[in-house]
Amino acid sequence: MSTDQKTQSQQILFTRGVPPAEALPAEDLGECFDSVVRNDTSVVLQYGQQRGYAPLRKQLAEEYGVSDDEVLVGNGSLQLQDLLSKHLVNEEDAVFTEQPSYDRSILTFRRNGARVTGIPLEEDGIDVERLERALEREVPAFLYLVPDFQNPTGATLSLEKRRRVVELAERYGFYILEDIPYRKLRYRGEDLPLLRELDSAGRVITVSSFSKLLSPGMRVGFMIGSKGLIDDLTGLAENTYLAPVLPTQAAVSEYIGRGMLAPNVESLKELYRPRWEAMTSSVKQELPGATMFTSNGGFFVGVMLPEDANTQNLVGRAKEQGLVLTPGESFFADSDDGEPPRGERFVRLPFCAVTTDQIEEGVSRLAGLV
Amino acid sequence: MSTDQKTQSQQILFTRGVPPAEALPAEDLGECFDSVVRNDTSVVLQYGQQRGYAPLRKQLAEEYGVSDDEVLVGNGSLQLQDLLSKHLVNEEDAVFTEQPSYDRSILTFRRNGARVTGIPLEEDGIDVERLERALEREVPAFLYLVPDFQNPTGATLSLEKRRRVVELAERYGFYILEDIPYRKLRYRGEDLPLLRELDSAGRVITVSSFSKLLSPGMRVGFMIGSKGLIDDLTGLAENTYLAPVLPTQAAVSEYIGRGMLAPNVESLKELYRPRWEAMTSSVKQELPGATMFTSNGGFFVGVMLPEDANTQNLVGRAKEQGLVLTPGESFFADSDDGEPPRGERFVRLPFCAVTTDQIEEGVSRLAGLV
Repeated sequence: MSTDQKTQSQQILFTRGVPPAEALPAEDLGECFDSVVRNDTSVVLQYGQQRGYAPLRKQLAEEYGVSDDEVLVGNGSLQLQDLLSKHLVNEEDAVFTEQPSYDRSILTFRRNGARVTGIPLEEDGIDVERLERALEREVPAFLYLVPDFQNPTGATLSLEKRRRVVELAERYGFYILEDIPYRKLRYRGEDLPLLRELDSAGRVITVSSFSKLLSPGMRVGFMIGSKGLIDDLTGLAENTYLAPVLPTQAAVSEYIGRGMLAPNVESLKELYRPRWEAMTSSVKQELPGATMFTSNGGFFVGVMLPEDANTQNLVGRAKEQGLVLTPGESFFADSDDGEPPRGERFVRLPFCAVTTDQIEEGVSRLAGLV
Repeated sequence: MSTDQKTQSQQILFTRGVPPAEALPAEDLGECFDSVVRNDTSVVLQYGQQRGYAPLRKQLAEEYGVSDDEVLVGNGSLQLQDLLSKHLVNEEDAVFTEQPSYDRSILTFRRNGARVTGIPLEEDGIDVERLERALEREVPAFLYLVPDFQNPTGATLSLEKRRRVVELAERYGFYILEDIPYRKLRYRGEDLPLLRELDSAGRVITVSSFSKLLSPGMRVGFMIGSKGLIDDLTGLAENTYLAPVLPTQAAVSEYIGRGMLAPNVESLKELYRPRWEAMTSSVKQELPGATMFTSNGGFFVGVMLPEDANTQNLVGRAKEQGLVLTPGESFFADSDDGEPPRGERFVRLPFCAVTTDQIEEGVSRLAGLV
């Protein structure tokens, strides 16, 4: 069979945002593990380091221009979001997100008692007018944003909106949780400032991880916030899991210390850029009636299908055609206007763990279904 | 200075139950990490394995005579106890423990909304008459037991009592959570059956970890229960931390697969046995009026000081003498009889991470204070 024929008969996974196997630097990480376990044994294999492995916290503190006390490293960023929700959300509090947003974060906030309201996402990020109207009705415990190459749409929050959102947080007195796991995977354009860099009132909490830059199975996530907040979350973490897993954190620290992270990110961008290009051009070509969010990086392109698209049992029909999709509804919280969310028209298209052939074939199958 | 003089001027830590640095097999573990990261890269460094690393689950299933579906491996056993509490405890439910019991478990159950009642611990384990009386008043969500070399006392539940507790669980319809992290570290006598082995009604859930047998910093804990329960907890785990940390689980599996765990446990027993002997004989000699729980293994000897002992600010006064103790009160839940718990008279004496000289000197300092 030719490559084309092979691709045509393959099942194509447009589901979770995972790195492909070839993106995982096994040799280098294996050496880093071996080195830290042998050379820092009494720290790495012992109880302790409740705030995370100290050398990694120091590296992160330097990178983000904060003190070590403002950094907590834990077992993946979702666990840290769970702890933060426990700490900040009282029963029946609101949490605001972009609409659509990361499905697991929505679930995590809800499981901790929050009513989660999605504020519509525009081409350049959250709709700030709608956010302000929602704030006049009620102030949330926090606003969750993925400002760079958002999951699930790929959208990036513009500089002007970053400023306005931070102003609103200061004016109304709520926290912004900025989640930036994709930020370093930019395929086009220039970095915008972090929300944290625009904030002078301590309203921004930053969370990220090494899952997209190094390895998801390591589960090394981190959070940056005020010392008081980090102290509280450390106590909660200690009561929940005693101490974080340390060999993985130490291996990440060693990997960074050896100067390997930046080149790894560069090689990931080289690997992912053609896939990102294939996805955006395939969507333009095959789904001309759909609204595609502009993605300049990360793992996803998000598409809102036309009003008249056939979305009836789309996931089921796609599966019959060998195309595996995530149900669009998962990414939608409650609407801010009381209308039912339009999740059935939304499709998240992850492009990193599929080849350009698979991308073209997959989008073509999708087009045939709607 | 002679060794004796040095010990006399040292601070002595009778606090947390941690292994000493010399007990951590760094070289072998370093190799295991390197091997699994290189050889099983696409599993170990990737998302997935929500129930834990499959080869490790298989090894544990074989050891405990259950199916793979009945095993969940996660980031330390306390995290699994937290998930189990979330699942089983409804607001204001009771959880029963031994009195005294593991302080962090008591906290974890309480944080999940449980009223935690301690049933007095006797020389041969929980007081079954008192347990039965408490059960007549109310049936708990579960009974938490550390049947082998209990934390904090060192006591072991007798065979007869194991049978009676399991009968009560079947009759009244509650779960028993048996926590067995110390079980393989027996310095005297023969193993008793697990509660799980005496249970024909599926009332026993077993939890343990590799923290005491290999390394605490790895945070590899596991739980064994019915497939239905493990399915539910896996869902809850996935919503909380997405996927477990995998390189550590894989390294443990490799370490077991290379036949290294059993010899390591033997060498730990050789290291710890003289310390255990020193602790029990020092307590007998220096604190003749105290009631010592009989410990035949594990990490701790527990002592109930005499009624007339001076326990006023004992932890503070001990610290002034260079002796660091954990406050006894931490190990006490609410009493089953409405009386105030007698935690101030209780002292937990961990012996694994201190030398025999330190043990003798430490117990002597303690005797001088009470």
